[in-house]
Amino acid sequence: MAAAAGQHFFEGTEKLLEVWFTSSTNDPTCDLRTIDRKDWEKLLKLVKCEIISSLKDESMDSYVLSESSMFVTKNRFILKTCGTTTLLFAVKGLIQLVKRECGFDNVADIFYSRKNFARPELQHFLHQSFDKEVDHLDQMFTNSAAYVLGRMNKDCWYLYTLDSGGVEQPDQTFELLMWELCPNKMKIFTKEICADGKEATQKSGICDIIPGIKIDDFLFEPCGYSMNGLLPGGYYITIHVTPEPHCSYVSFESNVPQESYQNLIKKVLQVFNPGKFLMTVFANQASIARDTHKHLERVDTIEGYQRHDHQFCSFKSYNLTYTQYSRPVI
Amino acid sequence: MAAAAGQHFFEGTEKLLEVWFTSSTNDPTCDLRTIDRKDWEKLLKLVKCEIISSLKDESMDSYVLSESSMFVTKNRFILKTCGTTTLLFAVKGLIQLVKRECGFDNVADIFYSRKNFARPELQHFLHQSFDKEVDHLDQMFTNSAAYVLGRMNKDCWYLYTLDSGGVEQPDQTFELLMWELCPNKMKIFTKEICADGKEATQKSGICDIIPGIKIDDFLFEPCGYSMNGLLPGGYYITIHVTPEPHCSYVSFESNVPQESYQNLIKKVLQVFNPGKFLMTVFANQASIARDTHKHLERVDTIEGYQRHDHQFCSFKSYNLTYTQYSRPVI
Repeated sequence: MAAAAGQHFFEGTEKLLEVWFTSSTNDPTCDLRTIDRKDWEKLLKLVKCEIISSLKDESMDSYVLSESSMFVTKNRFILKTCGTTTLLFAVKGLIQLVKRECGFDNVADIFYSRKNFARPELQHFLHQSFDKEVDHLDQMFTNSAAYVLGRMNKDCWYLYTLDSGGVEQPDQTFELLMWELCPNKMKIFTKEICADGKEATQKSGICDIIPGIKIDDFLFEPCGYSMNGLLPGGYYITIHVTPEPHCSYVSFESNVPQESYQNLIKKVLQVFNPGKFLMTVFANQASIARDTHKHLERVDTIEGYQRHDHQFCSFKSYNLTYTQYSRPVI
Repeated sequence: MAAAAGQHFFEGTEKLLEVWFTSSTNDPTCDLRTIDRKDWEKLLKLVKCEIISSLKDESMDSYVLSESSMFVTKNRFILKTCGTTTLLFAVKGLIQLVKRECGFDNVADIFYSRKNFARPELQHFLHQSFDKEVDHLDQMFTNSAAYVLGRMNKDCWYLYTLDSGGVEQPDQTFELLMWELCPNKMKIFTKEICADGKEATQKSGICDIIPGIKIDDFLFEPCGYSMNGLLPGGYYITIHVTPEPHCSYVSFESNVPQESYQNLIKKVLQVFNPGKFLMTVFANQASIARDTHKHLERVDTIEGYQRHDHQFCSFKSYNLTYTQYSRPVI
C-alpha cells in the first residue's frame, strides 16, 4: 500500500541473498565462521546496515542487524536486509573476503530473491528494478537464471540463481511473506505495548511457533521487531516485523525440514493474521520437503484464505513452489 | 541470434492473441463468423498485415496472413502475427467490432503471449517490452494477471490473461516454439527448393504430423512458409517458418486434445530438427490434457534434448506447463 504524501514510509520487504561456497581443493578447514566480526562489519557497511546482536550454536552464527538478519554456517552465507539497504553491493566483497579469509574459491550456488517493493522509487537505483539487479549480478556470474514468480503487474517474487545444481546435502527454505496485517497484532511490535523483544516474542505467540528454539530478539524504537532463532542441527528461523498500519509487512523464513508445511503455515498465520501472503518453498532432491508442491497443488484455500497463484519450478537440483493467497473481502 | 550489422533480419517470433467472447443475454445467434471479411481487413490494417488466403469448415474460418494466421470460431478469436506487426493496436477495435456486428458484449477471457524477441529494438515501441504491452492492455482490462515463464535473462515466454476462469468447455492449446533450426530442413521452405506451399508441406513431412487435416499453405517469395490446418470438431493446427539461417524460427500451435503430447512433440521435432525449443501447454479442467504437467514433470530429456526449465502454473480454470529444451552441445 503506497503511503500518502509526506507520511513516514518503511519498506519492510527484504532483499535476500544466500550463497553456498566450496573449495577446489576440498580443504576441510575452510569455514565461514572463522571470518572476524570486524570483517563482517566492514562488509555490512557496503549494504548500509550494522550488527545489533548475535547468537551462536555449534552449527551457526546468527546476527540481528539494524535492517534484518545474517546467518553464517561452515559453507553457507545468508544475508537478509530490508529498508533502502544496498545488499547487492556486498556480493563482490563477500566473494573476495571469503576467498582471502577462509580459502573457499568457488560459489557453488547463489539465490537472490525478493518480493516486489511497495515503493521501488525509494530504493537505490540498483535495486529499483529487478532487471538492473540481474544486470549487476550477471557481471559476476555466468550460467545464471532469473525468474519472476507470480504476477508482474500485481504481487510477484523475483529470483536470481545459478543453473548449477551445486548443493547436494538435504536443503530446504520456507518463506512466508505477509502484508496488510491485522493492526491489533501489529501493535504488539511497538514500544507502546512491549518493553523489549522478549516481551513481544511472548505476547505475540512467536515463542510457540517452533518450541525449544534459542531466540535472539529485538524491539526497535518506536516500533519494529526482528528475531533469529536457532535449533540444533543447523536449523534457523528468522522473523521481521514492520508494524506501521499503512505499510505493514512481516516475513517468516526457516530451513527447518517438513514433509508438509501445513501446520507451520497455520501457526504463523494465527500469530500475524495477514490480509495477504505469499509463500515460497525451495527443496532439493535430498530434502524431505521435495514433494511440497504436490501437497500444495491441491490446496486452493488455507485457513479461509483464497489462492490466487500457484506456480512450480523444477531446477537442476531444487524444486520451487510459489503460492499467493488473500483473505476474501467480506 | 542477433544478426550482423546490415544483414537482413526477420523476427519470426509471433505475438499471439486469443479472445473468448460471451453475450450478457446469452443470445444464441451471436457468431464471430458473421463479421464481414472487409471488417477483418480493416482491423488487420491496424496490425499492419493482410489476408492472403482462407479456408473454412463447419466450426471455423481460418486465414493465412501476410504475417502468420487468424482463426475465427463462433465465440473465439485467434490472431497470431510475426515480424514488426502491431497486434495490440487491434484489441480495442476488435472488441468494438464484435459488439457492433455480432452482439457479444463481454470478454470472457483473453490470452496474449509471446516468446522474448530476438531483436526487441526493431519492434514498434509498444511491443519493445512486455511491461509496455501490459500497461496498454491494463488500460482495457481490470482483474488481469501478467506472467513471465522461463528465464528473464535468457529465453522466456510472456503471458497476459484475465483472472476470470471464463472458459468452461474443454479447451487446450499446445505450442512448440523452435529456434536455431537445421539449415537443411529450413532450405525446403525457400523458392530455391520448392515451387509452392503444397510442395513444401509434402517435402518437409508437415503433411504427416496430423493425418487427415485440411490444409491451407503458402510459400513466400523468396522464402518463408505458413500453413493453417483444420480438423473436424473445431480443431486447428498452424505452422510458421522463418528459414533464414541467422534468424531461423518455427512455431507449431494446435488445440487438438491429447492426454499426452509426447508423440506429437516427437513428430514435430523430427520435421524441423531445432537446436532449441520451448513448449507451452494450456489445458482447462474439462480437457483431457489437464494432467500434461504431471507427465512432463518427469521428462527431463526428450529425443536427446535436455531440459533447462520446467514450470507449472495453476490458474482459475487453466493449467499451464512451460518447458524449455536444447540439444546438448557435442
